[in-house]
Amino acid sequence: MAIPTDLEHARTLDGRDELAAFRARFVIDDPALIYLDGNSLGRLPIAAAARAEQAVREEWGSRLIRGWNDGWIGLPERLGAKIALLLGAAADEVLVADSTSVCLFKLVTAALRSGLAAGRTRVVTDALNFPSDLYVLRSALALADDNHELEVVPSADGIGVSPTALAAAIDRRTALVALSHSSFKSAWLHDVGAVTAHAHEAGALMLWDLSHSVGAMPVPLGEANADLAVGCTYKYLNGGPGAPAFLYVRRDLQERLDNPVAGWLGHEDPFAFAAEYRPAAALRRFLTGTPPVLSLALIEPGVDLLLEAGLARLRAKSVAQTEYLIGLWEALLEPLGFRLGSARDPERRGSHVAVLHPEGLRISRALAERKNVITDFRLPDSIRLGVCPLYTTFAELHAGVMALRDVVERGLYQAYPAERTGAT
Amino acid sequence: MAIPTDLEHARTLDGRDELAAFRARFVIDDPALIYLDGNSLGRLPIAAAARAEQAVREEWGSRLIRGWNDGWIGLPERLGAKIALLLGAAADEVLVADSTSVCLFKLVTAALRSGLAAGRTRVVTDALNFPSDLYVLRSALALADDNHELEVVPSADGIGVSPTALAAAIDRRTALVALSHSSFKSAWLHDVGAVTAHAHEAGALMLWDLSHSVGAMPVPLGEANADLAVGCTYKYLNGGPGAPAFLYVRRDLQERLDNPVAGWLGHEDPFAFAAEYRPAAALRRFLTGTPPVLSLALIEPGVDLLLEAGLARLRAKSVAQTEYLIGLWEALLEPLGFRLGSARDPERRGSHVAVLHPEGLRISRALAERKNVITDFRLPDSIRLGVCPLYTTFAELHAGVMALRDVVERGLYQAYPAERTGAT
Repeated sequence: MAIPTDLEHARTLDGRDELAAFRARFVIDDPALIYLDGNSLGRLPIAAAARAEQAVREEWGSRLIRGWNDGWIGLPERLGAKIALLLGAAADEVLVADSTSVCLFKLVTAALRSGLAAGRTRVVTDALNFPSDLYVLRSALALADDNHELEVVPSADGIGVSPTALAAAIDRRTALVALSHSSFKSAWLHDVGAVTAHAHEAGALMLWDLSHSVGAMPVPLGEANADLAVGCTYKYLNGGPGAPAFLYVRRDLQERLDNPVAGWLGHEDPFAFAAEYRPAAALRRFLTGTPPVLSLALIEPGVDLLLEAGLARLRAKSVAQTEYLIGLWEALLEPLGFRLGSARDPERRGSHVAVLHPEGLRISRALAERKNVITDFRLPDSIRLGVCPLYTTFAELHAGVMALRDVVERGLYQAYPAERTGAT
Repeated sequence: MAIPTDLEHARTLDGRDELAAFRARFVIDDPALIYLDGNSLGRLPIAAAARAEQAVREEWGSRLIRGWNDGWIGLPERLGAKIALLLGAAADEVLVADSTSVCLFKLVTAALRSGLAAGRTRVVTDALNFPSDLYVLRSALALADDNHELEVVPSADGIGVSPTALAAAIDRRTALVALSHSSFKSAWLHDVGAVTAHAHEAGALMLWDLSHSVGAMPVPLGEANADLAVGCTYKYLNGGPGAPAFLYVRRDLQERLDNPVAGWLGHEDPFAFAAEYRPAAALRRFLTGTPPVLSLALIEPGVDLLLEAGLARLRAKSVAQTEYLIGLWEALLEPLGFRLGSARDPERRGSHVAVLHPEGLRISRALAERKNVITDFRLPDSIRLGVCPLYTTFAELHAGVMALRDVVERGLYQAYPAERTGAT
């Protein structure tokens, strides 16, 4: 069904947006910037800027080492308890620590070395997963005792993975199934409940990487009884560039797993500085070294905004916005040769829409430099249009698509090089 | 030889201090605070507070994802090149990444899995090392293929380790020698050149943890031809609470080692998001996940101050200050029952002096609460008096010792509990 493509319609949709007021809670000092890359790095909450000043000037500058007793020591658990609310998990099932890749390495290695996966030598993932996750999975398998192997279920269309193919790959040889809830490239959304249930039926552990979904929708981790998860905090959580990641271990598994990178902060009594390692009770054993306190502290304001807005409302707006983008693509971009790189079914689609064009790299550059529209490009031909329901407006999406159309219709992209440089 | 114990003498020494002006480069908003714990968390450089504002407001807030192309992507190497100047290492031999413990895990695991340690199954360390390093070493050994074991050379007096005993432990079975340059508890200083040479004669790799020495003295890593090193940035580097650590790999070893936790940032072309991992050339392969940019960025101002002051001058002042502390201990504290917990020989002493007292915990509490003197306590009886030559004054050291004396003479510590709580 065709949708109205005029700006007035976008403004009407913004006028009906229950979450519209949240945009004012972010630092937006260039109102003309169309930022459609919050799925890569979320915007700066105003409260986070204030928190940074406090953490640097007061906590580090004035309190100095006393900051540990004032609250730094408990930050990984305190922030974890808040993030747990985004996952339907219990407060003591989530901890903030390390980078996503290091968290993933620790959980996968712990799982493979535990009795929980005894006799099983396969890890199943899919071609939609983060490449970094594939590297980490292979790293963990290389260190495992047995003759472990990674099975990567392919994607026929680059958008999704057939549930049948995925189910067929999971069997009695499977120690662990490790998937990204939402794919970084296509936004494909797995069915957490169904896949977890299937893994459990086969006797395998289920690990979800939530980096590309958490904060944009409710994640039914607790409901699905998932075993393990990791996720980043700098996308939809708006935690700041490279902010530390979180890990989740279901409560009944916490003391059945050992941290393969034992460090002082996961000791049951870290300040005893004992020569022998004794793991902390429950999840805290998965901490290793001293966390980067300033980057850690800035995660909280973004999570607070999400909790205030409510995940159901965020998801509803996200779906409405990706539906709107697909409608605009159909009316304005498909005729120019763009293909759709995300699922039509909103149940299988996260919070971005990928549009594909052979000149995608040059188009995304022209968009940034000529139109002040920030998207991002993923090889070979994918331009991601990210929707962050806390601050993205329908008018921005409209402007972004109009800019895309203009760049292609007028051939503006031809002035830009087709070779990648730096971070694109 | 007895030293003058009057305040006037301390002031005279401060008057002669060539580095005195550097104190004004730090945020010191409570001039009455005597801060003798910079060996645990360094003070906030004024330039770091300004850098924080820039990194949060401008780089994250305004530039958003473009920050990666603006400079974030190169930060681990750019900061590494500056830290290399503190180690006598080449610019391309140092990288900032992860926590100290995770960096250590990666290097030790890489070393044990490389052909460089073939047929050797022992790792040698000593009882003066950070407990966290012992945990990490055991973690890495538990994941190693062979029947590896850790040998911990004991300390007879809790202060130092006999060079003879250490040398005797290193032999043809030794894959790796892993030591802290300066001990966190006693400040014991190993002879980097001699120990490294001995390890090499035995055919073993040498890894130094520089956390407790870097920034307080020249570290002759390059001159000694050491193989591997790690170090933290939040002590004498004044990089901020939990700021990411650095790792060093001598250039000729970089491509002979594989990162055991391969992640996207160590890929030769990270933004290709390729399914197959191909390690970056040289040291960059030791990166794993996205670093915590804000904590990372704040490391630079402290390193700049050290480079401006010069390591030889910093070491000279540090030695003068620990000599002064030992003189005051002898005159004022030994008669009250304090023992000396650090080496008398400045060649074997880092940048703090430990004084030992059976009531150390209560005394350190009374010092903080009654006297506004911050030290720290390490079990069972050690009070560390830290000297940070960039900002510690002789007058502070004098005041700290006078406060110690008063707390013990008047029994003020008896009002405080002897049980540990929180971070002490």
